[in-house]
Amino acid sequence: MPASRVAIVAVGTELLDGGRVDTNGPWLSARLRALGFTVAGRLIVPDDVTAIQEGLTFFRDRADVLIVTGGLGPTHDDVTREAVAGWLGRAVVEDADWRRRMEADIAARGISLPPMVFRMAQVVEGAEVLPNPVGAAPGQWIEAGDRICVLLPGPPAELQGIYQAHLEARLRRLVAQPPLRVVLLRTSGVPESRIAERVQALLDRSDVTWSILPGPARVDLEVRWTGPSDEPAWRHLLERLRQALGDDLYAEGDIPIEQVVGQRLRDRRQTLATAESCTGGLLGHRITNVPGSSEYFLRGYVAYSNEAKVDLLGVDPEAIRQYGAVSEPVVRQMAEGARRRAGTDWAVAITGIAGPTGGTPQKPVGTVHIAVAGPDGTTHRCFQFRGTRELIKEQSVQMALDLLRRRL
Amino acid sequence: MPASRVAIVAVGTELLDGGRVDTNGPWLSARLRALGFTVAGRLIVPDDVTAIQEGLTFFRDRADVLIVTGGLGPTHDDVTREAVAGWLGRAVVEDADWRRRMEADIAARGISLPPMVFRMAQVVEGAEVLPNPVGAAPGQWIEAGDRICVLLPGPPAELQGIYQAHLEARLRRLVAQPPLRVVLLRTSGVPESRIAERVQALLDRSDVTWSILPGPARVDLEVRWTGPSDEPAWRHLLERLRQALGDDLYAEGDIPIEQVVGQRLRDRRQTLATAESCTGGLLGHRITNVPGSSEYFLRGYVAYSNEAKVDLLGVDPEAIRQYGAVSEPVVRQMAEGARRRAGTDWAVAITGIAGPTGGTPQKPVGTVHIAVAGPDGTTHRCFQFRGTRELIKEQSVQMALDLLRRRL
Repeated sequence: MPASRVAIVAVGTELLDGGRVDTNGPWLSARLRALGFTVAGRLIVPDDVTAIQEGLTFFRDRADVLIVTGGLGPTHDDVTREAVAGWLGRAVVEDADWRRRMEADIAARGISLPPMVFRMAQVVEGAEVLPNPVGAAPGQWIEAGDRICVLLPGPPAELQGIYQAHLEARLRRLVAQPPLRVVLLRTSGVPESRIAERVQALLDRSDVTWSILPGPARVDLEVRWTGPSDEPAWRHLLERLRQALGDDLYAEGDIPIEQVVGQRLRDRRQTLATAESCTGGLLGHRITNVPGSSEYFLRGYVAYSNEAKVDLLGVDPEAIRQYGAVSEPVVRQMAEGARRRAGTDWAVAITGIAGPTGGTPQKPVGTVHIAVAGPDGTTHRCFQFRGTRELIKEQSVQMALDLLRRRL
Repeated sequence: MPASRVAIVAVGTELLDGGRVDTNGPWLSARLRALGFTVAGRLIVPDDVTAIQEGLTFFRDRADVLIVTGGLGPTHDDVTREAVAGWLGRAVVEDADWRRRMEADIAARGISLPPMVFRMAQVVEGAEVLPNPVGAAPGQWIEAGDRICVLLPGPPAELQGIYQAHLEARLRRLVAQPPLRVVLLRTSGVPESRIAERVQALLDRSDVTWSILPGPARVDLEVRWTGPSDEPAWRHLLERLRQALGDDLYAEGDIPIEQVVGQRLRDRRQTLATAESCTGGLLGHRITNVPGSSEYFLRGYVAYSNEAKVDLLGVDPEAIRQYGAVSEPVVRQMAEGARRRAGTDWAVAITGIAGPTGGTPQKPVGTVHIAVAGPDGTTHRCFQFRGTRELIKEQSVQMALDLLRRRL
């Protein structure tokens, strides 16, 4: 049963009432696309049996695989099981194996939970259970005539765990056509329009589609080969894109910059410390999101107050008085102090004004100084970022990691 | 023409190919909901005339207001104008006023742009132009029988600018019913099924709907009053919910726990330091997401290596040797060391195994020790979290903030 088109129905009143953003749809779409599927559409519906069923009907003739995310929890508003079963004309039944597994898990953890949790052992009649490696609600794989329905729980870690352990291999066997060539080229520190300008002549051809995807202080370029298979032409295009992007290209593929930096430090057997003011720990958080980062990241200083900058990092109080805490001399002293006190090969320091208050005409909100201290000296840059407090923190960390990357 | 139901069609192949998350849908949904609309659903479709038209047809009998976002730019793949015009049986025409405005703007900026930019002056016949305060593609307000179609450009700043300047007031005049009462009750540290058990008898009534929204180490309860206006009954219900949730309730409304903690510290004129190992700075980042947090948050120590725990926080190396870095004695010393060295009233410390490696049978991945040191001593708890590395970090920080909140 070869398939090529997928549609996703995301269930959750909270996704329609605002507040909650559906990240599962984009996450799944990127992976399905890489497998060679076309994503026909995504629909977000409330926790309502009729709405779920109408969504399935809308996509029935537009997709071969229907994925429903969310609504598999234990509470009364989790109605995906009932909706899909009803739509298929089947019953909801308990999966005895999964129930035993839940009971064993609850016993092993020495806790007691109300009986409603066992709603999560209920499945659509005929479904194969896709075990949940990190939670209690399993996924379900349901074959129905010439169509596949897949049910996945809404919490992203659970959905992703099930997808990677059990679903991707099944879908790969199903796909009708070989994967398209798709590459994600990630750049940092250059505006969107400049990236577009550099690559558009190369990409103005009928066998390619492309998108520019800007993020905080970074721009991703996604290029998709849509013409007939022509490996040499694809490789040649890639090589020319790499040349056009030069040193601004930090990764090919969905790899965060902290992973690139981490790999280079590991290759060189060098170590890193951080000194943060306005980012408050976000730089250390990003660095330590990489598994194994303890090999090269030894410590971080969050020197939020002026006193902490002096006490933790040995910044000269006179420099703070004369130039202010957000200044080149202070950020250089922060980086050098962190490197010296931590005894690391490298240290990165950030100080700035994240807002919304604290700006002045000379140093408006978004003014951020970054310094990188290393074996061959200290470099510094000053930025003027725009946006909310969180966005200024994100941009600061992205650029700090990029400055370190360019030194490595 | 009173209206109550809205549906949103988001146009963009990049939203289906992954990489890009549609943030416009959640942003609009939250505002429409606050105006009193019900959001019937959101559909994401590719840059394709037929797909857009099929989406409009799907929602035709399910919504009174159809909002289409994206696909209003100047390039060949921006087809929303043509799709909506075709669906309504109308033509696409140039808006002479908007074209003049674009020409004046381009002249004032002293730039030259290719003629294709004037596609952005084209509108559906009969549309009212909603001027774009930050970009070149205006919004469009189209009355068609008993239905309204609204077109908005995809870039979030442009969409939000048009919405706030021109759209919200129009929609408010249209809405059929006053806003419902909605409350978000946020709890920490109690499983989803336990929260449901505590509140379900109170909420089992026909004039109320509710959702349970689990997050990392927290559970939100959203309660919506759908019956006739009855302020005393609503207040009575709220009061009983507060009693049922007790001290596990940390906020009413969309307020993060770090803001609750920050407000209590500010009220008491007390200060805070952090000492983090496995969370790598995420605790400091969360605390400093609150504007004005520099009033009470003075510094953070990211003691990732054992040596840093000894050097930065004065942890006894013998305690690390004897009990391991992830242990009660070490986390207590981390908290007490941070409090003493930073000279703050409070300090919170976290040490744990975030995984995916580093676990042992005695201390599996997800083992996290948290301590809170304060004027009246140090408290400690050990957790066994589940999930990915990032999820274990998120849960650790949420529980650390919750333990501090319960002490304050």
